[in-house]
Amino acid sequence: MGKKLYHGAAWYPELWEENVLKQDIAFMQQAGINVARIGEFAWSNMEPHEGQIDLSFFVKIIGWLHEAGIDTVMCTPTPTPPIWFTHGHPERMYVNEQLQVMGHGSRQHACTNHPYFREKAAIITEHIARAIGPLPGVIGWQLDNEFKAHVAECMCDTCLTQWHEWLQERYGTIEQLNDAWGTQIWSEYYHCFEQVPQPGPAPFLHNSSLKTNYQLFSMEKIAQFADEQANIIRKYSDAPITHNSSVAFSVDNERLFRNLDFASFDTYATFDNVPGYLINNDLWRNFKRGRDYWIMETSPSYAASLESYAKPHPNGYLKAEAVAAYALGAEGFCYWLWRQQRAGCEQPHGSVISAWGKPTVGYNSVLEVEQARLAIEPTIVSTRPVQAEVALTYSDRAKAFLRTEPHQKLNHRGLMTDFYAQLLDSGLHRDVVPEGAPLDGYKLLFTPFLPYVSAEYTEQALQLVERGGVWVIGPLTGGRTVEHTVHTDSALGALDRLAGVETLYTFPMDGSGSVGSAFGVDAPLSLWSAVFAPQDASAVGVVAEGGLTPGLAFITEKQHGKGKIVMLGSMPAGEEGQLLLNRLIVRYAEEADVTIRSDVTKGTIVAPRRGDDHEVWVVVNMDGAGGSVTLPRAGIDPTTQEPVPAGKLEIGRYEHKVIRF
Amino acid sequence: MGKKLYHGAAWYPELWEENVLKQDIAFMQQAGINVARIGEFAWSNMEPHEGQIDLSFFVKIIGWLHEAGIDTVMCTPTPTPPIWFTHGHPERMYVNEQLQVMGHGSRQHACTNHPYFREKAAIITEHIARAIGPLPGVIGWQLDNEFKAHVAECMCDTCLTQWHEWLQERYGTIEQLNDAWGTQIWSEYYHCFEQVPQPGPAPFLHNSSLKTNYQLFSMEKIAQFADEQANIIRKYSDAPITHNSSVAFSVDNERLFRNLDFASFDTYATFDNVPGYLINNDLWRNFKRGRDYWIMETSPSYAASLESYAKPHPNGYLKAEAVAAYALGAEGFCYWLWRQQRAGCEQPHGSVISAWGKPTVGYNSVLEVEQARLAIEPTIVSTRPVQAEVALTYSDRAKAFLRTEPHQKLNHRGLMTDFYAQLLDSGLHRDVVPEGAPLDGYKLLFTPFLPYVSAEYTEQALQLVERGGVWVIGPLTGGRTVEHTVHTDSALGALDRLAGVETLYTFPMDGSGSVGSAFGVDAPLSLWSAVFAPQDASAVGVVAEGGLTPGLAFITEKQHGKGKIVMLGSMPAGEEGQLLLNRLIVRYAEEADVTIRSDVTKGTIVAPRRGDDHEVWVVVNMDGAGGSVTLPRAGIDPTTQEPVPAGKLEIGRYEHKVIRF
Amino acid sequence: MGKKLYHGAAWYPELWEENVLKQDIAFMQQAGINVARIGEFAWSNMEPHEGQIDLSFFVKIIGWLHEAGIDTVMCTPTPTPPIWFTHGHPERMYVNEQLQVMGHGSRQHACTNHPYFREKAAIITEHIARAIGPLPGVIGWQLDNEFKAHVAECMCDTCLTQWHEWLQERYGTIEQLNDAWGTQIWSEYYHCFEQVPQPGPAPFLHNSSLKTNYQLFSMEKIAQFADEQANIIRKYSDAPITHNSSVAFSVDNERLFRNLDFASFDTYATFDNVPGYLINNDLWRNFKRGRDYWIMETSPSYAASLESYAKPHPNGYLKAEAVAAYALGAEGFCYWLWRQQRAGCEQPHGSVISAWGKPTVGYNSVLEVEQARLAIEPTIVSTRPVQAEVALTYSDRAKAFLRTEPHQKLNHRGLMTDFYAQLLDSGLHRDVVPEGAPLDGYKLLFTPFLPYVSAEYTEQALQLVERGGVWVIGPLTGGRTVEHTVHTDSALGALDRLAGVETLYTFPMDGSGSVGSAFGVDAPLSLWSAVFAPQDASAVGVVAEGGLTPGLAFITEKQHGKGKIVMLGSMPAGEEGQLLLNRLIVRYAEEADVTIRSDVTKGTIVAPRRGDDHEVWVVVNMDGAGGSVTLPRAGIDPTTQEPVPAGKLEIGRYEHKVIRF
Repeated sequence: MGKKLYHGAAWYPELWEENVLKQDIAFMQQAGINVARIGEFAWSNMEPHEGQIDLSFFVKIIGWLHEAGIDTVMCTPTPTPPIWFTHGHPERMYVNEQLQVMGHGSRQHACTNHPYFREKAAIITEHIARAIGPLPGVIGWQLDNEFKAHVAECMCDTCLTQWHEWLQERYGTIEQLNDAWGTQIWSEYYHCFEQVPQPGPAPFLHNSSLKTNYQLFSMEKIAQFADEQANIIRKYSDAPITHNSSVAFSVDNERLFRNLDFASFDTYATFDNVPGYLINNDLWRNFKRGRDYWIMETSPSYAASLESYAKPHPNGYLKAEAVAAYALGAEGFCYWLWRQQRAGCEQPHGSVISAWGKPTVGYNSVLEVEQARLAIEPTIVSTRPVQAEVALTYSDRAKAFLRTEPHQKLNHRGLMTDFYAQLLDSGLHRDVVPEGAPLDGYKLLFTPFLPYVSAEYTEQALQLVERGGVWVIGPLTGGRTVEHTVHTDSALGALDRLAGVETLYTFPMDGSGSVGSAFGVDAPLSLWSAVFAPQDASAVGVVAEGGLTPGLAFITEKQHGKGKIVMLGSMPAGEEGQLLLNRLIVRYAEEADVTIRSDVTKGTIVAPRRGDDHEVWVVVNMDGAGGSVTLPRAGIDPTTQEPVPAGKLEIGRYEHKVIRF
Repeated sequence: MGKKLYHGAAWYPELWEENVLKQDIAFMQQAGINVARIGEFAWSNMEPHEGQIDLSFFVKIIGWLHEAGIDTVMCTPTPTPPIWFTHGHPERMYVNEQLQVMGHGSRQHACTNHPYFREKAAIITEHIARAIGPLPGVIGWQLDNEFKAHVAECMCDTCLTQWHEWLQERYGTIEQLNDAWGTQIWSEYYHCFEQVPQPGPAPFLHNSSLKTNYQLFSMEKIAQFADEQANIIRKYSDAPITHNSSVAFSVDNERLFRNLDFASFDTYATFDNVPGYLINNDLWRNFKRGRDYWIMETSPSYAASLESYAKPHPNGYLKAEAVAAYALGAEGFCYWLWRQQRAGCEQPHGSVISAWGKPTVGYNSVLEVEQARLAIEPTIVSTRPVQAEVALTYSDRAKAFLRTEPHQKLNHRGLMTDFYAQLLDSGLHRDVVPEGAPLDGYKLLFTPFLPYVSAEYTEQALQLVERGGVWVIGPLTGGRTVEHTVHTDSALGALDRLAGVETLYTFPMDGSGSVGSAFGVDAPLSLWSAVFAPQDASAVGVVAEGGLTPGLAFITEKQHGKGKIVMLGSMPAGEEGQLLLNRLIVRYAEEADVTIRSDVTKGTIVAPRRGDDHEVWVVVNMDGAGGSVTLPRAGIDPTTQEPVPAGKLEIGRYEHKVIRF
Repeated sequence: MGKKLYHGAAWYPELWEENVLKQDIAFMQQAGINVARIGEFAWSNMEPHEGQIDLSFFVKIIGWLHEAGIDTVMCTPTPTPPIWFTHGHPERMYVNEQLQVMGHGSRQHACTNHPYFREKAAIITEHIARAIGPLPGVIGWQLDNEFKAHVAECMCDTCLTQWHEWLQERYGTIEQLNDAWGTQIWSEYYHCFEQVPQPGPAPFLHNSSLKTNYQLFSMEKIAQFADEQANIIRKYSDAPITHNSSVAFSVDNERLFRNLDFASFDTYATFDNVPGYLINNDLWRNFKRGRDYWIMETSPSYAASLESYAKPHPNGYLKAEAVAAYALGAEGFCYWLWRQQRAGCEQPHGSVISAWGKPTVGYNSVLEVEQARLAIEPTIVSTRPVQAEVALTYSDRAKAFLRTEPHQKLNHRGLMTDFYAQLLDSGLHRDVVPEGAPLDGYKLLFTPFLPYVSAEYTEQALQLVERGGVWVIGPLTGGRTVEHTVHTDSALGALDRLAGVETLYTFPMDGSGSVGSAFGVDAPLSLWSAVFAPQDASAVGVVAEGGLTPGLAFITEKQHGKGKIVMLGSMPAGEEGQLLLNRLIVRYAEEADVTIRSDVTKGTIVAPRRGDDHEVWVVVNMDGAGGSVTLPRAGIDPTTQEPVPAGKLEIGRYEHKVIRF
């Protein structure tokens, strides 16, 4: 991909007559759409009968687009195997955890692990790569579409067999599995891998290790499928490959993107969930560090299906989203979808153009985005996002652990987004980083909601601390082993020793009346919590009178190297809890000498970028309430070249300002 | 049926000893019951072993009834095939959308499309018709019982085959189906009808056309079954045939009643849902225009089953219900049930007589009904309900569309009832008319919640307008094609042109902050909405500041012929919304010169009837709060022959008054 | 069992290394644990391969315990058949009412009626009994674990066959069944037992008789399994046998304990549900009258699983629970579990010792329990609980009736507990007695929520009345026959005649506006109610104006012998309802000359016990708010031998006091 900002849309030319398509292309040009994503559901068009593959339609379309100055992201059509694949073949279909076999007519209905699926998927992909790869205008590839968005772990017989193979590979012998999972419990004990069940219907809960490992197996398998597909494409094309994913799907995004070329995501967060939108940007920037990400799908106004619809964006919000994305590191900002579907189950979904070829209620917002894109493009392409000093670890493995063990309907995404919102509100520039990402360059690391902390992760985090950084651990972190069992040496395994504490008790704080006191704030404590007896550490937050453990610590500090290890054993709740957490964040940001931070008001963000010899701030109001930030020094507006004085800068409703220092 | 009012009850003589039956008949005479409905679940009694049919019991019972002056509505027993039909034959059973096969022991457990079911049903019905048809006292027939009350679309293999045949008949070629449904989407594309699935388990939603057509198929099939059954009976009996249906069931009532002789319904609306009760009367009167309908089932006090019960009627309410029904066009008002079940799952259900042969808590209400019936019978049988000038279109096809596309759990019945309640509260006499009913004689037509508007319907409505009437279209009307797809010419297809508007946008208004202003009222707008740029029309309601489309119209008027076409693009919500809608109704009733209207207070109704040379008003208080109405001129009470002066007439709690003008 | 109080814990030695086990035993000694319950899930350890049984591990462990002064309750491991039993054998597995076949990996996954299960269960149990029975320290046996806790009625083919046999035995001929169930209804009629279905998937509700009888069948079968198992053990051991049950499980506890030696229960009621905890004690004391019961499982602090957790006990509450239990008749008070699980789905569950071998947050509470146990043991073992004068009848058959017929999601346990709480709050000492228990010695009998009242029960109750007692019948009592049908002689069958009333109507009072007036209180009436015309009785409570039946009685009294039969036809609701009920209880307690009663404040209990020549009161504050009671005469504290004056005695938060008179 080149040095420009993409403004795109998903387009389904296979569904429309040629005259409509030509009208579409003309309209795209007017709206400033410079890239179209095509093909991800078109398998039946490309291969109407098994083995009869004809891609000339898409070749022609890509040519038309290219002539019109519009690039193409080409997709593989594997989420929707045609009727010749599915009809009469229940054994090829996805089976849900109630053991229902899916029928044809929706999407993701096939088992992606079935050998015949893999075979036919490889063939169609190879044909596409060969025919489309060399075409001018093809600037990227998307594999499939939203892996595991509608489905999770398949329970079919193919998966059962592969599950056994996967276990064999992971554990070597069944005895190792039995030990690791503690299968003497409830007489689960297996004599051979073939006996290990899938976590299907049972009178009560399955073993945690079984449940979590089955998710890891499923996540690995879908990533392997992506690997296979990418390898086929690479034989014919140098264009970079991605997949449009999300933290909401049953995938391990870090693993999924490992062998892909760039990361992208789909988001349909509504305007009143700004942290839910921003966290994706701060995370996806870090799946392929140093490589721009794409927002591959977002609605120009509202998501909808036959059975639901979302609130439409207020006027102005879409532009704020786009500017924030570009400023935070997105190279592409693409809509789902260009032209409203006339048929199927997503007819009501928001689009740029209606099914009858007219601008939709979101169309003006798209024009605003384009205007903004043109204005900021020179500034954006000559700079890169500044790496943050503050990192928040994100783990899809932790998501799997929490799905196995949701405590009280806890939701990993919600927990992480709420925690992230606290960082956002503190005015800190932040990276959300995958569990396995390098931590060099960070000064302050937050590790909440990570039940299993690996030795590799710990090693990286300790180096950060030794360099003078602060590592804040918890809540809900460290209490489980890699096998989703409880430690038998100490409550939090190695963390106890590292943090200089003895974790005396772990137990559910909710309803216990426990109040935590720290940083001058008293707040109720919540969630499954750990309370500490500091050994080689000091108590920073203590459980005040009330609850079961008055006087014990729930926040501790230990000096380590030049930095600090901080344990956060419980979740302060309510407004006081937010205040307490805010003070904790600010305190350790200061101690860690975090400087990439501003006093921006809540609801507005500062995205710092750096060029060869200058810095840029993009300030965007996201909540529609306007805001302000203090500029540390005078800059200039790179578009108008007007000076911008130091001091307070006001930002209007959904407005953005770019300041070059 | 003759010129009298029926007061009846469902009765299950096959469940009781002869001495109980004789007691029952004596009691019926005391209570004024003049018709009994029998036989609808008695298949195992009539044909205990396959092929051994003996109807002598029912012949005897009908004789007893006749001797006691009680007529009979005879039923066919097809909702409950006996054990010899079901045992060991899962292939004959109903299969739900989770693909669960029903077992014996409840009702509606068989697939009504299975050829063997049809065969055995024809045989038992022919026997019944032959044996019972000629008996004195048999004044009518009821087919089966509450078709599709507990079940909806069957997913069995028989249905799959017939579905394919039905599709073949509807579409001719699979290519036509593919085009109509847009099956290139998500590679749904089929090569032959045999590949088209039933809408069973899938990872996400099915194609809207598939989902809606499967409902239409199911509705057509059950109506064909009714046709078959009716034809058999007609070979042996001239007595009119009906079915006891409801808007709550998965049937197309208009189609169902097409080939039947009179319409009837079951209702268990509680006393605090008066519109839910009345809408049935105003609709059922119009399924067989000019032919009286029956309330075939209602509770004397409360509905109940093992798993639920309803609030009992307050004293006085049942009589108000009955008088309202007779006045609105009912010939029969029948209870479910006469004698409380001693066994089964409906033991707790309200009845006239308890299982131990004593009056129930509702018994006095039954006596009150009888007293009222006797008093009003001469007046009622010498008059006919006046056709209203205001019509509200009802469509079970629209119900199917909304089940496929419920937006946000929208419920067709609830939407229609709420809209109907507005008409009721306006004091307008109204007809609720089936989608295909002739519209001659109407002046004001409302067409809300009708996603697909057919050319035939439009033609009829336009004639109404040309004659000087007003046609109010919306909300949620016209946005879908007959195939449940989106229009590709304009948002609302032909309606845009006819109404002289361009529908600029359709989108969900909820949560958008849109406020509509019309008729001097400002109200929040809700539901999926259409906003208009009037072309050859004028804006009557506009979106005030706020929302995404300030200044655009949500209500427009266009003069057409001597009348007006009014678009209502959105649903005004809350109390202000009710006020706005009320003003709209009143305004267009005035413009359309609607005269059959009174100032009756909310909760009280006026049912106008017309005799050869006079008019009658039946005024009934339905809400228990009493009310009043202004009599336009003096009349007389036909019972007492006392004069009733013009002017304000007070009506007490659940009281009714009959005035002859 | 000997003359001591047991303080125990469930322990899973098969899951841990020997060094951990030795540490555990040492810790148990420190904590005062004098009995361990072991073995209930260890089948795969005992019989890793089919037929290869080795019990030496458990023999060794029991030896270690015994050496440490710790007794053993040995369990049979039948809740968790090993993989060799389940793998490849779906026909041996439990099938739920959705007809889903359970897989391996949880517990209760096998059908306990399958002949091969019974065979293998008998073999392992015989081996265990033979090997473990003679060992010193084995003081008792527990069969299986929490029968039917996670499952209810199995729908497998084995059960279908046995169901038919059970029906044959119960009814003799199919005609008797048809008559009893009224199967002419809905053509359910069967020609042979083989045709009677299980109550699986159906379009609507099954016949009540079918549904209830299937529960009774299932309850009988699991009790027969317990009988079989107990008989095997008795061949080798004299130690008493129990099962750890609960009112929450799908068992008939009275039948289950009939052939066992002592009764025990598991409870995880949270601290804010004191009646939910106490009712178990007052009931279990009466399953084996005169024989102490055990609390076999309770949490030291909180229950939890992967998917949920409960609020932890406040400090002090566990001791109050234990003292109350011992005082009310418990011989054993045992924790689940000793050492936190390191694996499986109950890792988070509260325990005494953590998985890493340290005291948990509940550990101090356990020490407090031990301290209290030591202090009260001499007093407790030299006295017996005083039989109450007030009895509340409890029936698991009624629970089955209410599951078949829940009216409006009524829950038998909730109804009973709420009613029980009223007795508790009245300061009455009370027994909760099984339906079949002898009633000699009682003066006041409450029979609420018993749809079917047997002749045997009535006989017993009448004798109580004839002796001068008062029998309060209702609400929801007597309206159904043994077959779960409605009476056909009168509303409440024989009760009408006995109580001297005619039950005029039974109907749902909720929402009817009915207000009942009795004992100087007006309260809204609720639930399905009966209203009476007193014949040979007097009206004590009448329906005041409002509702459908003003002036009729809802409470009546009839003198019978030296006592009274009181009908309570409806449930007074709200705060006024509680007051009305309280006055009713107090009034009839006085009339019946109930003397075992105190003025103890709400939230505190008095447990009276009697020795050879003295009486003891154990007063325990259960709600953490403290309280008081008036001592009728001076006593002494048996521990300190200090005198305790007559008059008001204050009890602190969770405190207890023992007074010997």
